Amino acid sequence: MNDWIIPLDAESKEPIYKQIYSYIKEEIRSGRIPCKSRLPSTRVLAENMQLSRSTITMAYDQLVAEGYLEAKPCRGHYVAQIEDLYLISPSKKEAEHHSQTAKTHCLYDFSPRGIDLESFPYSLWRKITKNILSEAKKDLFLLGEQKGDYELRKAIQEYLYHARGVNCTPQQLIVGAGNEYLLWLLHQILGKEADLVAMENPTYQQAYRVLQSLGHPICPISMDGSGMLISQLQKTQAKIAYVTPSHQYPLGVIMPIKRRMELLSWAMEAEGRYIIEDDYDSEFRYKGKPIPSLQGVDQAGRVIYIGTFSRSIAPAIRVSYMVLPVSLMERYEQKYGFYSCTVPRVEQAVLTCFLQEGYFERHLNRMRANYKAKHDVMLSEIQKFPGFLVSGEHAGIHLLLTAKEKRQEQELLDRAWQGGVRVYGLSEYYIGEVGKREDTVVLGYANLSEKEILEGLGILRSVWGVCKR
Amino acid sequence: MNDWIIPLDAESKEPIYKQIYSYIKEEIRSGRIPCKSRLPSTRVLAENMQLSRSTITMAYDQLVAEGYLEAKPCRGHYVAQIEDLYLISPSKKEAEHHSQTAKTHCLYDFSPRGIDLESFPYSLWRKITKNILSEAKKDLFLLGEQKGDYELRKAIQEYLYHARGVNCTPQQLIVGAGNEYLLWLLHQILGKEADLVAMENPTYQQAYRVLQSLGHPICPISMDGSGMLISQLQKTQAKIAYVTPSHQYPLGVIMPIKRRMELLSWAMEAEGRYIIEDDYDSEFRYKGKPIPSLQGVDQAGRVIYIGTFSRSIAPAIRVSYMVLPVSLMERYEQKYGFYSCTVPRVEQAVLTCFLQEGYFERHLNRMRANYKAKHDVMLSEIQKFPGFLVSGEHAGIHLLLTAKEKRQEQELLDRAWQGGVRVYGLSEYYIGEVGKREDTVVLGYANLSEKEILEGLGILRSVWGVCKR
Repeated sequence: MNDWIIPLDAESKEPIYKQIYSYIKEEIRSGRIPCKSRLPSTRVLAENMQLSRSTITMAYDQLVAEGYLEAKPCRGHYVAQIEDLYLISPSKKEAEHHSQTAKTHCLYDFSPRGIDLESFPYSLWRKITKNILSEAKKDLFLLGEQKGDYELRKAIQEYLYHARGVNCTPQQLIVGAGNEYLLWLLHQILGKEADLVAMENPTYQQAYRVLQSLGHPICPISMDGSGMLISQLQKTQAKIAYVTPSHQYPLGVIMPIKRRMELLSWAMEAEGRYIIEDDYDSEFRYKGKPIPSLQGVDQAGRVIYIGTFSRSIAPAIRVSYMVLPVSLMERYEQKYGFYSCTVPRVEQAVLTCFLQEGYFERHLNRMRANYKAKHDVMLSEIQKFPGFLVSGEHAGIHLLLTAKEKRQEQELLDRAWQGGVRVYGLSEYYIGEVGKREDTVVLGYANLSEKEILEGLGILRSVWGVCKR
Repeated sequence: MNDWIIPLDAESKEPIYKQIYSYIKEEIRSGRIPCKSRLPSTRVLAENMQLSRSTITMAYDQLVAEGYLEAKPCRGHYVAQIEDLYLISPSKKEAEHHSQTAKTHCLYDFSPRGIDLESFPYSLWRKITKNILSEAKKDLFLLGEQKGDYELRKAIQEYLYHARGVNCTPQQLIVGAGNEYLLWLLHQILGKEADLVAMENPTYQQAYRVLQSLGHPICPISMDGSGMLISQLQKTQAKIAYVTPSHQYPLGVIMPIKRRMELLSWAMEAEGRYIIEDDYDSEFRYKGKPIPSLQGVDQAGRVIYIGTFSRSIAPAIRVSYMVLPVSLMERYEQKYGFYSCTVPRVEQAVLTCFLQEGYFERHLNRMRANYKAKHDVMLSEIQKFPGFLVSGEHAGIHLLLTAKEKRQEQELLDRAWQGGVRVYGLSEYYIGEVGKREDTVVLGYANLSEKEILEGLGILRSVWGVCKR
């Protein structure tokens, strides 16, 4: 990088140091300068660019202040690990695209995978961890139960029963380090011949990638306003249906009870059919009565229920859980019961206390209020948008905006990005090309403040409104 | 259980309450009374057995005092979760066998999978955790890097380079929640057609079970005093060889450099051959110069190196690491790089600090001295055993005793168990029947104190010596 030269716009009103700062920031954010890499020294860069060293220093200092760079004494400036700031990093293609069009940087990121970590109960979590470690029981550092420690499974089972109507014993519960791990375990339990899996289309891409990487052929099923089309599902050879009935990801459809019963009937029509119910953000719901989980209405042992604390507590809490029907649980115990639990026991104990002492419930109530407030701000503001339809707004922490006059998603994304706002195209959630919609954007609001939401939407309204036909 | 009757020996000199206590303890330890189950009330059991209630109460109280039972006010007595006390729970067959012969309970468990947790630096671990949580950086609760956070990988890479001669960059390192998870990931990376895996025979059963459950046919390879027999390996169709060269598990053989080179040559003879080097307890070595890892002498990118902190720190620290050759790393990044890391970031940060600040090195030095002292006590005592040969004693935390006069392992195990000592039969580590030795017992010493080792060996000497022919 020692012959690096940063392109400057001589006619711009922006001061030179700011142009340098913006350029480097974009390079870092797009991933073109990898994290941990060392930037040229201020001296070298100043020489290359024929600028004063203080101009470069000002740009670097600003980047340090904002956390993009780290200044290491006597060693220079290094790119900080900032990918953690983004729950989804843009794909390379996206990044390339954006870098071509971006004249500014992203100020407001409406990521549908974000969560509000400002409200994470840091001090409480710290206190519980401290208490658990100070009891310092030796057995907390020995291997625990394979499915996860009983107390934790019991606490999760009680929560699921009361909050989600899930019917199971702690014996049917397996705790694991994330949904991906549990999907893999499930893949093993279901047997070696990788069955055809039907998925809602569009769907949660991470689950799609995991199932595909495990060798399952995937059969995308179109959606209507109630969820996966059962008539289409019936025509496939799928043995497994992966669904998100509480709040379809990404469309936000809540599957009504009628469709749920149809789906269950499909599963019961043939031997070996199962439904994977991913209840990923069922905790947040703003309208109507809560609908119990599919698992709760399943009498035939055909539903595998998967949930996670990554969304309801924090992404780094790598704790997910899976409820197996009794028949699969027996198969698991016989064939895979020897796999050690992947969640550290201290973490398990902290979470158990969090659940048992009612902290989780209080946390959820607080988050629900928090997200509801953001949701309401979003909705009332978005209703002022001319030419757009809102959907998926009754639950979860994202919603969809569809241009009435069939404006292209890409145009909306580009204009937003130019205004410093990141929104997401619905098209990237589709499997294949069939039925792909390219007129809709996805907006998550969890990791923005109400003020930021208003400002971000203000920009969107202006950049999108300008070219309204 | 309300019609439960405990068999009593009227002729025994043991008081009735002690017989009841011993019986229930064995039932719990064998798993026949599952944990969390409720015992009959003292009143009911006293009535069933026509005994005074105070006799039953004395037995129950003793079990509560020892942690086998939990007394819950107004609800009765429940079996505690004691399986955590054992690192390996006996197989059902074993448990049945033992319960038939056991007249007493296990006082000394020479488990080869145990580690010394008395020496775990609880207060230091607590302090580091507290510090990390008190900085409470939001990004610690967001998703981190997929391979594990860079700082941790860098710290592990430096440790492996200095301590084990492993040559790699942090980019080649993947951190995961336990060896089993990493073996699965490796299985994915190596490709869908599950290749034949050659394993040392006898071998580490958990790895055998995992590889087998992933669909790999396993080909057991006999051992000589240098390790896996390469001539036998050559005759197989195996594409992968799974080895433990630092201290073969369970035989304790240290693979000399000549055999290592032969093994590497085998790997280089054909495309797609790989060696999995499980360096599970390389940290502990008592004689001779350290031999660097196989990975360190591999020039051709054929060695996949796997290690864990479960043995060197604590089993509940679910952190293992895998070093991939560059070609496989590229395949991983292309196809499986999207899997989230399974280790919580707080845990990663604690471990990073533990490594970076030199605590790990100091801990290892302390453990090495600790294990060396136990090892020396074992050896000097065992040399007094008539009729036995010692092997595998130069490294690791277990050794083997072979009866010179071909006494059956089962007899040795039974007599030990009757004396209150648990030792392990070598036969259970074999794959299939070929070459299975049934004259050798495995004794781990990590989780016993020097005093307990002496007492346990005293009992073994007496119970085994009695029937010496």
